[in-house]
Amino acid sequence: MSGSKFAYVKNYELPDPLLPGTFVVFRLDGHSFHRFSDEHNFSKPNDTRALKLMDHAAEALMKEYPDIVLGFGESDEYSFLLRKSTSLYQRRQAKIVSTLTSYFTSCYLFYWPTYFPNGLLKYPPSFDGRLVMYPGEKEIKDYFSWRQADTHINNLYNTAFWALVQQGGQTTTEAHATLRGTVSKQKHEILFSRFDINYNNVDARFRKGSVIVRVEIPELHEENEPPTKEGIDDSTTVQNPVKAGKTKKKKKSAPKTQLQVLHCDIISDSFWNEHPGILT
Amino acid sequence: MSGSKFAYVKNYELPDPLLPGTFVVFRLDGHSFHRFSDEHNFSKPNDTRALKLMDHAAEALMKEYPDIVLGFGESDEYSFLLRKSTSLYQRRQAKIVSTLTSYFTSCYLFYWPTYFPNGLLKYPPSFDGRLVMYPGEKEIKDYFSWRQADTHINNLYNTAFWALVQQGGQTTTEAHATLRGTVSKQKHEILFSRFDINYNNVDARFRKGSVIVRVEIPELHEENEPPTKEGIDDSTTVQNPVKAGKTKKKKKSAPKTQLQVLHCDIISDSFWNEHPGILT
Amino acid sequence: MSGSKFAYVKNYELPDPLLPGTFVVFRLDGHSFHRFSDEHNFSKPNDTRALKLMDHAAEALMKEYPDIVLGFGESDEYSFLLRKSTSLYQRRQAKIVSTLTSYFTSCYLFYWPTYFPNGLLKYPPSFDGRLVMYPGEKEIKDYFSWRQADTHINNLYNTAFWALVQQGGQTTTEAHATLRGTVSKQKHEILFSRFDINYNNVDARFRKGSVIVRVEIPELHEENEPPTKEGIDDSTTVQNPVKAGKTKKKKKSAPKTQLQVLHCDIISDSFWNEHPGILT
Amino acid sequence: MSGSKFAYVKNYELPDPLLPGTFVVFRLDGHSFHRFSDEHNFSKPNDTRALKLMDHAAEALMKEYPDIVLGFGESDEYSFLLRKSTSLYQRRQAKIVSTLTSYFTSCYLFYWPTYFPNGLLKYPPSFDGRLVMYPGEKEIKDYFSWRQADTHINNLYNTAFWALVQQGGQTTTEAHATLRGTVSKQKHEILFSRFDINYNNVDARFRKGSVIVRVEIPELHEENEPPTKEGIDDSTTVQNPVKAGKTKKKKKSAPKTQLQVLHCDIISDSFWNEHPGILT
Repeated sequence: MSGSKFAYVKNYELPDPLLPGTFVVFRLDGHSFHRFSDEHNFSKPNDTRALKLMDHAAEALMKEYPDIVLGFGESDEYSFLLRKSTSLYQRRQAKIVSTLTSYFTSCYLFYWPTYFPNGLLKYPPSFDGRLVMYPGEKEIKDYFSWRQADTHINNLYNTAFWALVQQGGQTTTEAHATLRGTVSKQKHEILFSRFDINYNNVDARFRKGSVIVRVEIPELHEENEPPTKEGIDDSTTVQNPVKAGKTKKKKKSAPKTQLQVLHCDIISDSFWNEHPGILT
Repeated sequence: MSGSKFAYVKNYELPDPLLPGTFVVFRLDGHSFHRFSDEHNFSKPNDTRALKLMDHAAEALMKEYPDIVLGFGESDEYSFLLRKSTSLYQRRQAKIVSTLTSYFTSCYLFYWPTYFPNGLLKYPPSFDGRLVMYPGEKEIKDYFSWRQADTHINNLYNTAFWALVQQGGQTTTEAHATLRGTVSKQKHEILFSRFDINYNNVDARFRKGSVIVRVEIPELHEENEPPTKEGIDDSTTVQNPVKAGKTKKKKKSAPKTQLQVLHCDIISDSFWNEHPGILT
Repeated sequence: MSGSKFAYVKNYELPDPLLPGTFVVFRLDGHSFHRFSDEHNFSKPNDTRALKLMDHAAEALMKEYPDIVLGFGESDEYSFLLRKSTSLYQRRQAKIVSTLTSYFTSCYLFYWPTYFPNGLLKYPPSFDGRLVMYPGEKEIKDYFSWRQADTHINNLYNTAFWALVQQGGQTTTEAHATLRGTVSKQKHEILFSRFDINYNNVDARFRKGSVIVRVEIPELHEENEPPTKEGIDDSTTVQNPVKAGKTKKKKKSAPKTQLQVLHCDIISDSFWNEHPGILT
Repeated sequence: MSGSKFAYVKNYELPDPLLPGTFVVFRLDGHSFHRFSDEHNFSKPNDTRALKLMDHAAEALMKEYPDIVLGFGESDEYSFLLRKSTSLYQRRQAKIVSTLTSYFTSCYLFYWPTYFPNGLLKYPPSFDGRLVMYPGEKEIKDYFSWRQADTHINNLYNTAFWALVQQGGQTTTEAHATLRGTVSKQKHEILFSRFDINYNNVDARFRKGSVIVRVEIPELHEENEPPTKEGIDDSTTVQNPVKAGKTKKKKKSAPKTQLQVLHCDIISDSFWNEHPGILT
């Protein structure tokens, strides 16, 4: 029962490499999360527990895959930027997209009880993933700007919509009708005049989404010297610390970094200027 | 903050359709499951709980995706056959491979406590997936024969190897040395003469892997008639029953099917002859 | 000035193999041949010289590439079937499509003076090419049927159209108006009643297009024996004859074949039954 | 005989777009030109007529396809740069590679008599083509540097080789042996000391290959004013002139350009600085 006479079927696996030297965006989206959020009683318009779970899964993914240099999440979707020189899985597309989606999914279930301690999962949720190649820095900035602009548009609508329903007593049909054709400014106005909500004071997590970056941990002093007070890094979330025993004198070690979740604007240039490591 | 000036980035998403009219195999493999099985104390050479969990996730996937007409699993891998006319996700490759891998992963974690009630997951496991197109029936039979021949070769080796280690007191290095260069017959001989193990009596699940097929449920009598004894379907695992309320008299409903997990030979023609629906 | 530091750019060439075990159709079309045929005074509705030149180029292509087992041409397009096991250029798509299109183009110019002895080429004509994979025999039959049905539809229309213009004195606008909305039978009627043309008597080359097949040359008798009268092959267009000196007694040589241009129906099964070698 | 029931076969044509926003290099190579050059008695090591014919075909291609902004040729190969925003044939790969290869081939035959007035083509030559995407300017410069470095290496070798054979009386085997293991400097030395050839004085066409660029034609004066002497463009090879009648006052017309064939260095930055339009 040797398998050799059947092994030719392996030749049908076609190569699917990403073009070298291009940035790669990996985006995943929740599959049927409208139903999933209903079944699990997510708060409307935003459920902080669910968003933090997404962020946690995203952080875990970035910890596992150091070639991811940026993450951006909103609602049930997350985008990740792979640095253009990445050779992850020899840049094979199906391998990358399936493994990253799988690991994120796994983390989502693994950390679920941390954020929903009293809410059992009723059925297994899933995500779809895709890879998109971008040749230059401009396209990358525009990609992430596109996602954050989307966050803004959706969240403003949803905030107004649910205010009309939850506080204004409208049916969902009525609320949609109220908002139909309104521009941004009018939605701000509705929120402020009817519900005393200043949209700009809404939690930045909801308005801006979540941005995950790697930041360098300031260099510690010589290891056998007692660190001065200023040198102490008291962060509790240090990621990927370089193991002391592995540090070699001759070889300059890569700077230690940790992941940081921000809820800041990424459309203006200042974000990119403050994080030059993302695109280089 | 309209997103319209950024929306051009969507044009970078390239189409990736599968060729129409071809069979598609979706195979997934555990990522670093050597370590995962060690950390979670899987029995050697086979852990029945882990194999049953794989089967359960595979069944759940086939229940969710009716276009999967066959599943075959061994160890930490599973192959699925999508019927050649499937239009799942418009046959988009990244969508299919990521979603199916994600859902399987999700089920693996979701059902983990069922099979490991006392064994907490230490970290999130993941899988990679791939899609392979095959133009004809011959290649499909040969593909699944290839996987089952692989099951046989691996399991015979592992059975002999762990017998040498666990019962024969050899180190793993010694056991590898003992088996080096042996052919199938010699491994049978080692098992029988030294450990009184008749390999052919080893659990078929280990020797043959798991085969999941859809089988038709015999038609029930008219719904408002009491079923005769013969008509009773007492299976507890009926899948995809046609809801009574949805049954229309004019439209012939698709036959009701249920999933069945077998541990049988799929290399000889008889399997394919007995399940003609798989390839047509 | 060593090139080694630049050679990395070669890595950007992505693999593009055809799926193994599938039939491959190569189709080429004349680029802007409406203008080309006007500039070179092609007869309307069909120019026999131009069609024969297309056939000649197609035959030359099939002579050069033995893996092409069938050709079908109409107007300024030609389709070729590559047998499913072909390993031409390791099945690389760009290599195949560019080389075959180039060689056909080259033959078109090379043999132009043979068919247009008094008509100089005014400018260089070109063709585009494409490759399409088909998994099974049914799709191949349907592909070639599709092209021949197209030939029929176009030629019937064009024959009626140019009869109205050339013999009926209509302007082209009037002729289009006359034919608008007519079905096949009505076009036959117009041709017959107004112009005494029985469409079924129109040259089969125009009605059916050109079909190029490889046919076996009957085996000759022992070389040192005088051939009997029946054994004489008096064809003047023997292609790819096996060189006598290369014939080995032990090894059965492939049957000698020659190309044959037909103008027959290929939609009915009888064509395929009479040429079983095409699909096997 | 409607074709509609067969038309589904068209669905098997898969999309093959180039990634947007990337530079595209189209390279073609002569197919079996070693034999072709022998059969047509090309001079060794370089045949100026054959090189000029290649240049002529390349110029014709660039005239026909304005999106080609640079050409580079050596021996029987030519590379062309398509500007990154090109939407030629909706960026469909097979369409582009087949059409461009076909048109170049057609021009090669069309202009053959111009360069070989007494040398009939013995058989139809052909070319293969390929497309390669590059995300950035650096890769484009390096690509063309790679080809010119190749030109240098090959031509120095061939010049020395044929000097040894034609003037030194060596057999080709002996000449290969003489050159085996020699570095660039040693080949210069052989040429100079034995054959009094200063390699740097060899025709730049052979040493540098052919570079085809588009250069702006200096603006003419107002059309209804008699041009001053300085304004007269007496070039005889003006390409793509803007037709006077189409010039609109409101719309600034694109600058008039003509093609120029150079034999200059393109590895150093100065070439790219002097032709800023190529990469922007």
